[in-house]
Amino acid sequence: MIFEMVKSKVVAHISYFIGSQNEAVVVDPRRDCGVYVEIAQREGMRIRYVFETHRNEDYVIGSRELAHLTGADIYHGPWPDFEYGETVRDGQEFFFGKLRVTAIYTPGHTPGCVSYAVADLDSGGETVLVCTGDTLFVGDVGRTDFGGPERKEWSENLYDSIFNKLLPLGDHVVLCPAHGSGSVCGGRIADRELSTLGLERLTNPLLQMSREEFVEHKVEEHHEYAPYFRTMERLNIKGAPFVGCGPNPPPLKPSEFKEKAGEGAIIVDTRPPPGFGAGHIKGSYSLYLSRLGLGGWVLPYDKPILLVLGSQEHLDYVARSLVRMGYDDLGGYLAGTIASWYKEVLPVEGLGLMTVADLRDRLEEDGDWVVLDVRSRDEWEEGHIEGCTNIYVGLLQQRLDDVPEGRPIALICKSGTRSSFASSILQRAGRRNVHNVLGGMDGWKKAGYPVTK
Amino acid sequence: MIFEMVKSKVVAHISYFIGSQNEAVVVDPRRDCGVYVEIAQREGMRIRYVFETHRNEDYVIGSRELAHLTGADIYHGPWPDFEYGETVRDGQEFFFGKLRVTAIYTPGHTPGCVSYAVADLDSGGETVLVCTGDTLFVGDVGRTDFGGPERKEWSENLYDSIFNKLLPLGDHVVLCPAHGSGSVCGGRIADRELSTLGLERLTNPLLQMSREEFVEHKVEEHHEYAPYFRTMERLNIKGAPFVGCGPNPPPLKPSEFKEKAGEGAIIVDTRPPPGFGAGHIKGSYSLYLSRLGLGGWVLPYDKPILLVLGSQEHLDYVARSLVRMGYDDLGGYLAGTIASWYKEVLPVEGLGLMTVADLRDRLEEDGDWVVLDVRSRDEWEEGHIEGCTNIYVGLLQQRLDDVPEGRPIALICKSGTRSSFASSILQRAGRRNVHNVLGGMDGWKKAGYPVTK
Amino acid sequence: MIFEMVKSKVVAHISYFIGSQNEAVVVDPRRDCGVYVEIAQREGMRIRYVFETHRNEDYVIGSRELAHLTGADIYHGPWPDFEYGETVRDGQEFFFGKLRVTAIYTPGHTPGCVSYAVADLDSGGETVLVCTGDTLFVGDVGRTDFGGPERKEWSENLYDSIFNKLLPLGDHVVLCPAHGSGSVCGGRIADRELSTLGLERLTNPLLQMSREEFVEHKVEEHHEYAPYFRTMERLNIKGAPFVGCGPNPPPLKPSEFKEKAGEGAIIVDTRPPPGFGAGHIKGSYSLYLSRLGLGGWVLPYDKPILLVLGSQEHLDYVARSLVRMGYDDLGGYLAGTIASWYKEVLPVEGLGLMTVADLRDRLEEDGDWVVLDVRSRDEWEEGHIEGCTNIYVGLLQQRLDDVPEGRPIALICKSGTRSSFASSILQRAGRRNVHNVLGGMDGWKKAGYPVTK
Amino acid sequence: MIFEMVKSKVVAHISYFIGSQNEAVVVDPRRDCGVYVEIAQREGMRIRYVFETHRNEDYVIGSRELAHLTGADIYHGPWPDFEYGETVRDGQEFFFGKLRVTAIYTPGHTPGCVSYAVADLDSGGETVLVCTGDTLFVGDVGRTDFGGPERKEWSENLYDSIFNKLLPLGDHVVLCPAHGSGSVCGGRIADRELSTLGLERLTNPLLQMSREEFVEHKVEEHHEYAPYFRTMERLNIKGAPFVGCGPNPPPLKPSEFKEKAGEGAIIVDTRPPPGFGAGHIKGSYSLYLSRLGLGGWVLPYDKPILLVLGSQEHLDYVARSLVRMGYDDLGGYLAGTIASWYKEVLPVEGLGLMTVADLRDRLEEDGDWVVLDVRSRDEWEEGHIEGCTNIYVGLLQQRLDDVPEGRPIALICKSGTRSSFASSILQRAGRRNVHNVLGGMDGWKKAGYPVTK
Repeated sequence: MIFEMVKSKVVAHISYFIGSQNEAVVVDPRRDCGVYVEIAQREGMRIRYVFETHRNEDYVIGSRELAHLTGADIYHGPWPDFEYGETVRDGQEFFFGKLRVTAIYTPGHTPGCVSYAVADLDSGGETVLVCTGDTLFVGDVGRTDFGGPERKEWSENLYDSIFNKLLPLGDHVVLCPAHGSGSVCGGRIADRELSTLGLERLTNPLLQMSREEFVEHKVEEHHEYAPYFRTMERLNIKGAPFVGCGPNPPPLKPSEFKEKAGEGAIIVDTRPPPGFGAGHIKGSYSLYLSRLGLGGWVLPYDKPILLVLGSQEHLDYVARSLVRMGYDDLGGYLAGTIASWYKEVLPVEGLGLMTVADLRDRLEEDGDWVVLDVRSRDEWEEGHIEGCTNIYVGLLQQRLDDVPEGRPIALICKSGTRSSFASSILQRAGRRNVHNVLGGMDGWKKAGYPVTK
Repeated sequence: MIFEMVKSKVVAHISYFIGSQNEAVVVDPRRDCGVYVEIAQREGMRIRYVFETHRNEDYVIGSRELAHLTGADIYHGPWPDFEYGETVRDGQEFFFGKLRVTAIYTPGHTPGCVSYAVADLDSGGETVLVCTGDTLFVGDVGRTDFGGPERKEWSENLYDSIFNKLLPLGDHVVLCPAHGSGSVCGGRIADRELSTLGLERLTNPLLQMSREEFVEHKVEEHHEYAPYFRTMERLNIKGAPFVGCGPNPPPLKPSEFKEKAGEGAIIVDTRPPPGFGAGHIKGSYSLYLSRLGLGGWVLPYDKPILLVLGSQEHLDYVARSLVRMGYDDLGGYLAGTIASWYKEVLPVEGLGLMTVADLRDRLEEDGDWVVLDVRSRDEWEEGHIEGCTNIYVGLLQQRLDDVPEGRPIALICKSGTRSSFASSILQRAGRRNVHNVLGGMDGWKKAGYPVTK
Repeated sequence: MIFEMVKSKVVAHISYFIGSQNEAVVVDPRRDCGVYVEIAQREGMRIRYVFETHRNEDYVIGSRELAHLTGADIYHGPWPDFEYGETVRDGQEFFFGKLRVTAIYTPGHTPGCVSYAVADLDSGGETVLVCTGDTLFVGDVGRTDFGGPERKEWSENLYDSIFNKLLPLGDHVVLCPAHGSGSVCGGRIADRELSTLGLERLTNPLLQMSREEFVEHKVEEHHEYAPYFRTMERLNIKGAPFVGCGPNPPPLKPSEFKEKAGEGAIIVDTRPPPGFGAGHIKGSYSLYLSRLGLGGWVLPYDKPILLVLGSQEHLDYVARSLVRMGYDDLGGYLAGTIASWYKEVLPVEGLGLMTVADLRDRLEEDGDWVVLDVRSRDEWEEGHIEGCTNIYVGLLQQRLDDVPEGRPIALICKSGTRSSFASSILQRAGRRNVHNVLGGMDGWKKAGYPVTK
Repeated sequence: MIFEMVKSKVVAHISYFIGSQNEAVVVDPRRDCGVYVEIAQREGMRIRYVFETHRNEDYVIGSRELAHLTGADIYHGPWPDFEYGETVRDGQEFFFGKLRVTAIYTPGHTPGCVSYAVADLDSGGETVLVCTGDTLFVGDVGRTDFGGPERKEWSENLYDSIFNKLLPLGDHVVLCPAHGSGSVCGGRIADRELSTLGLERLTNPLLQMSREEFVEHKVEEHHEYAPYFRTMERLNIKGAPFVGCGPNPPPLKPSEFKEKAGEGAIIVDTRPPPGFGAGHIKGSYSLYLSRLGLGGWVLPYDKPILLVLGSQEHLDYVARSLVRMGYDDLGGYLAGTIASWYKEVLPVEGLGLMTVADLRDRLEEDGDWVVLDVRSRDEWEEGHIEGCTNIYVGLLQQRLDDVPEGRPIALICKSGTRSSFASSILQRAGRRNVHNVLGGMDGWKKAGYPVTK
C-alpha cells in the first residue's frame, strides 16, 4: 500500500494518492494534476478512481483533467448537480489492489459531503484511514455558514456525521482531511498534518462539546466569504478548463509591463513587505508568497494579472497558485524584477514602514494617528491595541468608507504581511500617509506594550 | 509539524524526520544521511537530536555522521555499551519546536530497546505518534531470537513492553516502526506503511494472543541469522566510518574487471534472473535489485565487490544499498554492462531456465530430477512440491553437502529471484546442470499443479 | 547569451535553445516540447521564434505545440508547402536580445533547407554559430536520396550550399547540426557533439572531395528509407497533434496485456538481448532501449503498442521516444515486467543465444547453418563472415523470402542488439531454430576469427 | 565525446567535464566537486585526470578533493610550487577514450599558466577545443597585474602565448576559458559563453592590437586586488580542506543570531537592495545574491559569517558561493528571515532610498549633497555625474577617510546593488544620512540627465 499526501500551500489543500499493487485512487486532486500522473508512473500504478469529497469552494478541483489523462472514473456526492462524473451511493464500495474504499455520506459542511474510508483487505478489512474532506479537520471541523438560512440544520448534520458516521469507525483510524493549517475552510486547523479519529475525539475542541453546544457554536461562529468562492463553485460544478503542463506567463520588459498595466491589468507584487514598502509600481497589490491566497478577495477574473516577483525561482509557485484559484489570465511578469523598473526610471511609490516601537512613539506623541487592525474578528477579539479599528483585510476594499481620511494611518496584523496587503489596498484607493507596521501584533505583544480585549 | 518517512528499500528500513518550527529530530537515520540534511535545509530546520531505538543488526546506522554534520546530540538505549552518544533515561523528555519526545524503555527485541513517543504541545500534550523501532511492526512484532538462551525472557519482556508500555498510549497513536514489509527483522510485516496502535491491537495476529501464547510463539518462531548481522552489530556499537556524499565505484573495462575478479574480488550481478540465466560472468552471484539484501548471507567484508548492472541508472541504488550493509569496498562496475563482456569474447556461462510447466514435464518424465525449494521454512510449510528439499537460500552456501550431486537440479522459490541467487551459489560451488524455475511457486500454484503441506 | 543543446537520444536529434536578455529562440524543437518552456522559465526568457531547418523525415517536430504554449512565431523554409507557420526569406534577419539570426537558404538535403546563422551584436556582428539542420553534420553531410530522380541535382545543391553558403561564414563558426552520431539522417556522423565550420573543412571526409567527387559519392551512397518516414513527413507538413505533458500508457496486468495482444496490439520488448533471448512473450519485437528507433521499420500506426520494460524507470524514456516518432497509441506496459508473466504461467518463447565462439564451433561442425548479417550494407562491406547473407535489419520483414527455411539460422550484427531485433522478426514470421549471436562482429573480430571483405 | 560546462555563478567560473567512452577529465574543478562525480556516474565514466590551468586567485580549486573521491591524477603548471599533484611538461600528452589532451605552456597571466588542447583521434587528431584558463577569455585576456614589478614581462609573455601558442591552433578551435562575464579576472569578458579562437582573433579588442600596443595596454590597465585573493592563493598552493557534501549552516532564532553577532560574527544580508534599505540588522553588509563575490573585499576569515536570506531557497546558493571563496566558518542563518527579527522587536536600521529623479532634485535643491560613485574606475571614466567622487566599492572600507563627513551622501553604481553594499559599509563605519540610489547610472542615463566624462 502506497500512501502519499500532495499538499498545495497557497490554499492549504491536501489531496491523497492511495495505491496498492498496480492500482490507485486519488482523493480531491488539485487542478494542475500532473503530480499524480508522475507518482503513478513512478510506482507502476494506474489511477482507477478519482473521489471528490465535496464541491470545493476555495480551489479548483482537477478531477476532470486527471480523468482525461488516465481514464479514471470520477465519483462525487449527491449535491449539487455536477455536470461530470458519477454520484456515489452511501455505502458504495470500490475495490482496487488489496484495498477497499467505502463511501460514507457525511453531510454538514455541504449537503453533499462524502467521506471515503479505506480498508486493507489483508488486515481483515479494518478501516485504516478516512478521507474526510471538509467535514473533520485536525483540531477543527468544517464551516457550515455556506448553509445560509439552513445553517442550523447543516450544523446539526455536521455533528451527526462526525459523531454517528466518522468517530464510530474507531479511534485507530488515520484522519485525512482536505485542508491543513492556514485554510479558509476552517479557522483553527492545527499546524500538524498527522492525526487519527481518536486523537480528534480527545483533543479537538469542537468534539468536546455537546450536540447543542456544537450547533450553537457553529451557528454563531464567524467566517468570511471571499468573492472568488463563487467562481470556484461554478467551475467545480461544471469542471474547469484543462491546464496542461501548467501556466506559462511570459517575462515582460518594463515598457511592455507598463503598457499592459495601463490597459487595465492588475499588478500583484509577491515580494516581502519591506521591499514592497521601500518602493513598488503604483497600483500594485502586495501579496507576499505565503499570503497569495488572499488575492481571492480582490483579484478580478476578467482582467489579466501581472506579477512582480522577488526571485525568478518563485515564478512556478506563484503562477500555479493563482491557477489553482482559477486565475488563468496571467499576463506576464516583470523581467528582471523591480530593479529593471528602477533602471528604466518608471514611477515607483513607497509606503511608510514602522516597527512596533515607532508605532508606540507615534501614538504617544500624536493623537491624530489611526490604527487599523486588519486581522480577523476572532484574532482581534483575543487582544488588540486600544482604540484601533478592526476591518478584516479581505473586506477592506469594500469597506473603504469606514477608514477615516486625512489622518496618518498605521496598518497592523499579526506579523506585517496582511497589513502590507491592506496598505496596498488603501494606496490603490488613493489614500496617502499609509504605514505598515512590521512585526505586527506579535511584535507589539513581545515588546510588552498594552493590549485590550 | 513536519513528519517525513525516509525509506531505504534494500533492508526495508524506515527512518523518521520530525520537525516543528525551526527544530527537528531524526529517528534511526540511515548511513548515507545527506537526505536528512537536505530536508532540514529545505524546511529551514536544525536537527537537534538523533534518537536510536536500538542497536540495529541489519543495517549500519548513520547517527554519528549525521551528528557530525549537524551538531545534533545522539541518544540511545541502555544496552549494549555504545562507544558514542548518550544513554537516554526511561521517561526522559525532550522539547523542540512545539513538540515533546518521551523516551520509553521497551525491552524485548533487545534489552536496550527504546520507543519514542511524540506529543504535540499545541494539542494538550496527547501522544500523536510513537517510533517503536523493532518492538512493534505493522502486523508483526520484533524478533527475540537474538536472545539465545534468554530468548524466553526477552519474549516476555517484549509482550510486556507492547501491552504495558505501548498500547496504553492509546488506540489513536500513529505507529512508526523501523521496518516495513520485506525486512529480515520480522517475517510477516504487512505491506502497508500506515498504522496506529489501535489498528495493531485489533488486527496484528501477535496481539490477539495471550501472554503465554505470545511467549510460546516467539520462543518457537523460526528466524535466520545472516552472517553480516555480526558486522552490523559491531559497527553500530562503535559507530561506522563516514561515507560522505556516498559511494563512487568506478566503471571498469572488461579487462580491468577480469583482472580484479582474478585477484579474488566478488562479482554481484544485479540483472533480472532471465538475463542472468542467459549468460553471466563465471563466479557471479545473482542478486537482483529487489533482493540485494540477501547478499548479507554470502558477501565477505574483506574482498572488493564488483558489480554487473542491468542499467547505468541502477548504480546509485546498488552502491548505496551495499554501503548501508557495510560493504564499503566496492571495486567498480562493468562498463557497458554484460554487452561489453560479450564483445571482448570473455567467458560467460549460462544457467538452465525453466517455466513451471517445463518443471512439471521434467518431473513427470524423469525421476532423476532434484527440486530444491530455497524459500524460508515458513513459506515451505505453507505448501510445496511433493518430494522437494527445502534449504533456505541464505543457508545454501553452508549446506552444499545437503544438495545431491550428479543429478539435474531445479531451484524454486516464490517467483524466481531467490532461486536465481541460489542457482548462482550452486554454480560457484562447481555444480552443473542447475536450473532456475521462473515464475516459482506462485506460477506452480497458479497453474493448479499439486502442492503438499 | 544562453546556449543550450537539447538532445533526444532515440533519433539522435539535437535542438537548440538560444537566448539573450529576456528573449530566446528554439531551433528544431522536439515534439514533447515542455523542456524548452522550462529553460525559458528558469532563465526568465520569452521564446520569440521557433525556427525549422527543414521538413524532418525521422521525427515529429514540436513547433506548433511550442508556439501554442509560448506565443512564438514559427518560420520554415520554402519547401514543401507547410500548413502552419511562415516561410522565411533567404537573408531574412531576426533580432532578439543582443543577437541577430540570419536565415540562409541551403538546399540540398531537401529543396527547402534553411540554415540559421546567429551573430552577437556585442561582438561586432560576427557569426558565432550556425544551425545547419541536416545540411552539414559533424563528420558527414545530409542525405540526398530523398530526391529520387532529382538526386543528382539535390547533391549538387548540397555541395554548393556547404561550399558557397556555409563555409564562407568562416572557420571560426560553431557548427550546430540537427543530428548526432547514430542518426538515420547521416550514416557516418561522428561521435562528438562539438565542432566548427573550420574543423569540418579540415576533417570532414566529404568536404575533402571535389564537387564532382562529392556529387558522385552522394548519388551512389547507399541509404535506407524507413516506412515511418512517410508518416513523419505527413505530420510535419501539417503539424502533429499536441502531446501535452507527454504520454501516459497504463500498467496492464498480464491478463489485460494478453487480451490486448490477442486483439492485435503490437508488443515491443525493450529489455536487453540476453533477457529477451532467455524468454519473451510470443510475437514480441526485441527493441532494446538504444535501438528503439529501429521500430520505425516495422511498427504500424494503426494498432496499439504494448511495452515490456526492463525497469520501471525506463517507462518515460520509452514512451517519449515512441511519441517522438509519432506512435501515439501506446496501449500500456506489462505491470511487474516479464516476471509477472511467468508467475501467471502465460506462454513464453525463447531464442537461441550464442557467443561468437559458439558460432564458430557450429560453423566448423555443421555445414547446414545459415549466418545472416543484418548490419547495413556499408558495415557489411567493411568485413563480414565468409558465406553469410546480408539483409539490413530494417528490410528483413519485407525480405523474409530471402531467408532460407528449414536450417538453423545465426543472426549477427555489430554487438547483438540489432540481431536480437532481427531474430524477433524471424520468430514472429514463424521461423524456428533462430539464434542471436551476442558480442556480434565486434566479438568475432576481437577473437581473431576470419573476416572477408 | 561528452563535453559539459559547469558554471559557478558567484565568481563567474567555468570548469569543464570532457569524456570519451568510459574515461573523462575535469579542467579547473570547483571546490564543491560532487557535480563532476555525478556527471561521471550518469555517463558511466571514470575521471582519470584533473587539469589545473593555473594557481587561481579568485576561488578555491577542488582538485585535491576530486582526486580523493575518484582516484584521478592532478596536473598543474610549473609555477608556483604546489604542495600536491604533478607538474605537467610543455607538450605532454594524455590519452583517454578516443581523445588526446596536450598541455601547452602559456605563461603571462602567471608564469605557470598552462592551456590544454583536446583533440579527437577519430577526426585525425585535429584540435577541437582548448581550455585556456585565464590566458584568453571571450572578448578579453587575462590580468597581468599580479606580476607587480614584472608586469611588463608577464604582459609580453601573455601576448606571445596567445599569438604564438594559442592562435596557431587554428580559427576552428573552440575556446574554453575559466571565466565568463562578471569575473574579477578580466574586466571586459563578453556575455557569451561560446567562442572559438577565430572569433577571438576577429573580434577580441585586445587581439586587434600590435604587440607593443597590447603590452602597453596591459601594463597600464587598471585592476583591483581584493584582499581575499591572498587566501585563495595560499589555499590553492597547498590544497584546501575538503568540504564533503557542502556547507550546512544552521537556522538561528533571532536571539541566537543576536548573541552570535554580539560575539563578533559578521552579518551578510543577501536580500535585494530595496528590502535592505527598508530595514536591516545593524552592522549588516548588503551583499545581494548576484554580487556576493564582492564579499571578498571585506569579509574576514577569522570570524563566523551569519546570513540573512531573502528566501529559504537561496541557502544552498549563498552557502556554496561563500565556501567557494574559502569562507568555511558559516555560523548560521536567521530563521524566518528578517520578518522574525521584527516580530522579536530587535533593533533594525534603515537606509535612505532614492530614485535617480530624487537624486537630481536633491542636487538641484541643495549644494550640500555628496555623490559617491562606487563603480570601477573604468566605468566611471566612461561617464559619471558631474562633481561626484569615485571610490571603487571594494576599496571603500579602506578609504573611509576620503568620504566627507557630516553631509548627506548619495551612493550610486550601475543599478543600485553595489551602492547598497557601499551604503552598508558606510553605515557600519558609523556614517548617517546615507542614501542608496536605486536604478543607478543606468537609470540616470536613461532619464537623460547630464553625464560628464
